[in-house]
Amino acid sequence: MNLPVVPFGKPRGERADAARNREHLLETARDMIAELGVGKVTMDGLAERAGLGKGTVFRRFGTRAGIFVALLDDDEHRFQEQVLSGPPPLGPGADPVQRLIAYGRARTAFLVDHFDIARASLDPHQPTPAGGGTMTRLHIRMLLKQARLDVPDLDSLALQLTAALDGPLLLYMFPTDPGPVSAAGTFIPLADSWQTLIESIVRANRPIDPDQAAERTARP
Amino acid sequence: MNLPVVPFGKPRGERADAARNREHLLETARDMIAELGVGKVTMDGLAERAGLGKGTVFRRFGTRAGIFVALLDDDEHRFQEQVLSGPPPLGPGADPVQRLIAYGRARTAFLVDHFDIARASLDPHQPTPAGGGTMTRLHIRMLLKQARLDVPDLDSLALQLTAALDGPLLLYMFPTDPGPVSAAGTFIPLADSWQTLIESIVRANRPIDPDQAAERTARP
Repeated sequence: MNLPVVPFGKPRGERADAARNREHLLETARDMIAELGVGKVTMDGLAERAGLGKGTVFRRFGTRAGIFVALLDDDEHRFQEQVLSGPPPLGPGADPVQRLIAYGRARTAFLVDHFDIARASLDPHQPTPAGGGTMTRLHIRMLLKQARLDVPDLDSLALQLTAALDGPLLLYMFPTDPGPVSAAGTFIPLADSWQTLIESIVRANRPIDPDQAAERTARP
Repeated sequence: MNLPVVPFGKPRGERADAARNREHLLETARDMIAELGVGKVTMDGLAERAGLGKGTVFRRFGTRAGIFVALLDDDEHRFQEQVLSGPPPLGPGADPVQRLIAYGRARTAFLVDHFDIARASLDPHQPTPAGGGTMTRLHIRMLLKQARLDVPDLDSLALQLTAALDGPLLLYMFPTDPGPVSAAGTFIPLADSWQTLIESIVRANRPIDPDQAAERTARP
């Protein structure tokens, strides 16, 4: 079975009934996951429960993994909305260092909450897609810049911090058991350690405050 | 074609002629890569050039990707030997912070040098194997501990630094063009940025030297 997978998100110009079907299917899939767990969601089961033809489900998602790609994409959009226009400190308006810490904490929680769905979104017959992390990288880069850190290479640091944030959950814990993740509901150690990492970088690289520097120069 | 892939490294009790064949095949593959590039190495071409039967090559490597898995494994062993018993600062004997920096630089160079081989070692019909990084993680953890940093969670920090080190080359740049990597031969920006990262963590979290602390306490 090698049907083309529908691209992420709502295609432009999606007709109203197709959009309704999509929303209905995603909502039904969420209900099934909540009730039965990720492992029990199948293409046939989803079609039956949604009261739609199997053909509709196959055309929409392509493969079983495609269901979870669509769910993940939908939640990812909601997460990005919170970052772009939600309340501080995750959203705009807070100090950039506080936003960096809040982003790492929220992202860790997001990745933990989506661990099973993310795993199921990987098609076992396809190579794992290259790590995205583009939004995370750009966001981290912007906040590092706003924090006016005196580091030699903001791009590389942003890339390494993106990997430090996403990597432990995306790369190193697949496909092993998440361990403390599922037990505690949130993966506190990684979120705390992210805060330590950011605070260390800030403490070590924060340039002298311009006012203080001026004061210091002014002294005899 | 779904022959089982031979496990990493030299199997225990490998017979002498099998071991010789393996060495000969790896050496021939290295010659072919140096002359023709990774893309031109095929199972048939390797068998012909090595003067061995196709069956021998298939039994040894299973798939074309298996050739590169074996090459990578061989070089990985050599790299680990340098870390475990080579000259300082990569090998034992140097200050742990200097060793952390040297390890990150050497690892970056290793990953850059093996970029094409690592990419070719991914079987396009198999899911990408979970990121290993176990040796890197244990080594970083050991050195962080030796550096006696005052961080709340050494395990999480080691995991995040492993991801920061391996991630940009293993995850985020696959399968896109390596860009500056191939141009410069080494990926200087990431190695420099690794040093900044380690120095920041050390500067921000180095506990007060016990002698200095005693002196300070002794003062009235």
